[in-house]
Amino acid sequence: MIEINETHDQNLKSWIESANTADTDFPIQNLPFCVFNRAGTYENTRIGVGIGDFVLDVYPCYEAGLFDDESFTIAVAAHNYCLDHSAMKKNPSLQRAFRRRAIEILSKNADEQTRRIVQRNLIPINEAEFWMPVHIGDYTDFYCSIFHATNVGSMFRPDNPLLPNYKYVPIGYHGRASSVVISGTEITRPKGQNRSDADAPPQFVACKNLDYEMEVGFFVGKGNELGESVSLDEAEEHIFGLCLVNDWSARDIQAWEYQPLGPFLAKNFATSISPFVVTMEALAPFRVPAFKRDGGDPQPLDYLSSENNQKFGGLDLTLEVYLQTEKMRDENIEPFLLSRSNTKDLYWTIGQMLTHHASNGCNLQTGDLMATGTVSGDSKDSRGCLLELTWRGTEPLELPNGETRRFLEDGDEVIMKGFCEKEGFRRIGFGECRGVILPAE
Amino acid sequence: MIEINETHDQNLKSWIESANTADTDFPIQNLPFCVFNRAGTYENTRIGVGIGDFVLDVYPCYEAGLFDDESFTIAVAAHNYCLDHSAMKKNPSLQRAFRRRAIEILSKNADEQTRRIVQRNLIPINEAEFWMPVHIGDYTDFYCSIFHATNVGSMFRPDNPLLPNYKYVPIGYHGRASSVVISGTEITRPKGQNRSDADAPPQFVACKNLDYEMEVGFFVGKGNELGESVSLDEAEEHIFGLCLVNDWSARDIQAWEYQPLGPFLAKNFATSISPFVVTMEALAPFRVPAFKRDGGDPQPLDYLSSENNQKFGGLDLTLEVYLQTEKMRDENIEPFLLSRSNTKDLYWTIGQMLTHHASNGCNLQTGDLMATGTVSGDSKDSRGCLLELTWRGTEPLELPNGETRRFLEDGDEVIMKGFCEKEGFRRIGFGECRGVILPAE
Repeated sequence: MIEINETHDQNLKSWIESANTADTDFPIQNLPFCVFNRAGTYENTRIGVGIGDFVLDVYPCYEAGLFDDESFTIAVAAHNYCLDHSAMKKNPSLQRAFRRRAIEILSKNADEQTRRIVQRNLIPINEAEFWMPVHIGDYTDFYCSIFHATNVGSMFRPDNPLLPNYKYVPIGYHGRASSVVISGTEITRPKGQNRSDADAPPQFVACKNLDYEMEVGFFVGKGNELGESVSLDEAEEHIFGLCLVNDWSARDIQAWEYQPLGPFLAKNFATSISPFVVTMEALAPFRVPAFKRDGGDPQPLDYLSSENNQKFGGLDLTLEVYLQTEKMRDENIEPFLLSRSNTKDLYWTIGQMLTHHASNGCNLQTGDLMATGTVSGDSKDSRGCLLELTWRGTEPLELPNGETRRFLEDGDEVIMKGFCEKEGFRRIGFGECRGVILPAE
Repeated sequence: MIEINETHDQNLKSWIESANTADTDFPIQNLPFCVFNRAGTYENTRIGVGIGDFVLDVYPCYEAGLFDDESFTIAVAAHNYCLDHSAMKKNPSLQRAFRRRAIEILSKNADEQTRRIVQRNLIPINEAEFWMPVHIGDYTDFYCSIFHATNVGSMFRPDNPLLPNYKYVPIGYHGRASSVVISGTEITRPKGQNRSDADAPPQFVACKNLDYEMEVGFFVGKGNELGESVSLDEAEEHIFGLCLVNDWSARDIQAWEYQPLGPFLAKNFATSISPFVVTMEALAPFRVPAFKRDGGDPQPLDYLSSENNQKFGGLDLTLEVYLQTEKMRDENIEPFLLSRSNTKDLYWTIGQMLTHHASNGCNLQTGDLMATGTVSGDSKDSRGCLLELTWRGTEPLELPNGETRRFLEDGDEVIMKGFCEKEGFRRIGFGECRGVILPAE
């Protein structure tokens, strides 16, 4: 586990004033990576770091001498269009060197010349267009919230909501890498087979029960060879950083297709991720013990157990989902908070997910994305998808302007946010993961 | 559908005599692509074409002027290490131009100078080392044999072997792309959670019920954009070619982990593919009607129906699985034929699989691999995996030297073969897909 050090000091301030406000997602203690260019231009994409209301364009700062070769390689790609796979593999030591140097040039101690160079390379976030931060080889989605699994299970299998493997196996399945898209990408409502009437043949129609799922993703930095496994205490050295994930789900397609091999077309039409990748080092102050199991619950098997994981494997990351309908936008009504949950309530830690994934010798590769599955808590207002919030559509939500929702309608925008806060530390945020629903084609 | 033309003429002969033997997999009518180098050297990999007992090294033939730029681009990569994605997208017209020119230089009509150039660039297959023919973005595995689905279903759900969606939905799920390996790669027995005793906790142990699955794969040539679909009559224009696939399966891990989201660690430790990619054009003479549904079976929904698919969507490709144990190798006993099946018995065609996959707007990409699922037929000797052949281990197989098998043992080699034959045409083959089991680490 990464230790808390001077880069987490809450008294560190930046000479960029917007990084010092209480509510910024990107204080100097965060410094998440992204890939961006200026919106509306055809210029090449480049590596950026979020700071206050800006993205710092890293490459020209390197050219001007602000980073040495070693600390810079973590942030630059051979082709500069995404985070460099070969550099990500060297994580975490180079990443730490980059973080330390970035803090120096952004802190109040930076000299005038440094500030002038940085200033030239700050792009306001609202003028930036974001791109996939990395080429994703394989995408795996887990199912690690016991509250989500129990809720969903009790709708589909009332007598037997939680299957017997759940408390032993971090359940996961392979998702589709090609359709992972960056926040802001419009989501076309999928068509698919729907068999809502069990006495009639299915129909191929536009999805009627379109849903989101509030998840957290993590990128593999260093991989492992085929046939090798990764011990739990080594697992986090293989994680480059975290982002927000919206695992869009077509519930009617899912209900009809998912047996016996799992969800397929219900999921692979789109998965949205937030543009900023928050590093494991930035998250160090917010690590918490792994989920406390009930007395009657089995302990994890040996390969999924370690003292470090037990003490620090969890993460206190608050997640929020907001909805703004087309009508709300027209009426200037702010996005409405649908739920608030926290990754500390996940039954399995991210380290356990990664270790389980490689436990059979499966080769994880730099740039792979893994996601937690829907993060739901114990209470109703912490349910991370509409399936749970509206109990399969039977308890519609009421919105501030009187509209109601069972599932998503065309024109609805889902906005996800995430942040960590703790007494004695600066709050850090994940930015946003957004997506608007377009009608089926 | 690609029509039968003069390149399929059975009277075409090559000046390379081994391509004219009755039992060669690679007559001049086939010309499958591969990526190879000379075994034991560190030379770069290059694009090859199978012809008789040889692989033709294509690039130096191009350099020597035997191919024009256009017909050559189909076979050469910008980086030459695998089939070029941008060239694959141009399929099928460029592929046809390449095929025609390759037949000219390999046929008996080729002049002396052409033969001299080709001769210099023929590498005996048994001196070649093969590599992945293409970078696979996403790998999807289907479940398209109704005989396999019924057999497996009746073991796990005796009252309800075939689920109600089967005859409407080409059931598929996402596999792991990173662990798809080339034929000949040794397969390490995976470890995983096994709960053979339902009254005790699971144990993390080496897989006890290791199996193969005989499948056929197809590579996407031209992709589609996110949000777009692919009509059934266009589907085959998106397919570059076919190979053999062994979807190694850990049945004990699978039984415990697969609910509710499908197989995961039971499959993603390795999937083997044969090195030669047989093109759609080479397969033209062997197309047959789609599977004939029973009178009581529903017709496919409109998006999965077309006259062309009905008439020519199937493929008459015979598949064979052989086993050679370590003891058989020591005793010089030939590999033993375990089963023989045929893709014409698949309930869904490859066109239907691809169209279904993109029907929700999922973006297929050049280089994606899709596989059919285990190809089993109606009879016992056509069952495409040990799970079916030994009926979950309850009816062990007897081998010629008196050994028996419920599932695979360490040292066992599984060898898969495939070929098409039809009166009036030359037989064409797929080569082999091999893998030896190593003990768990």
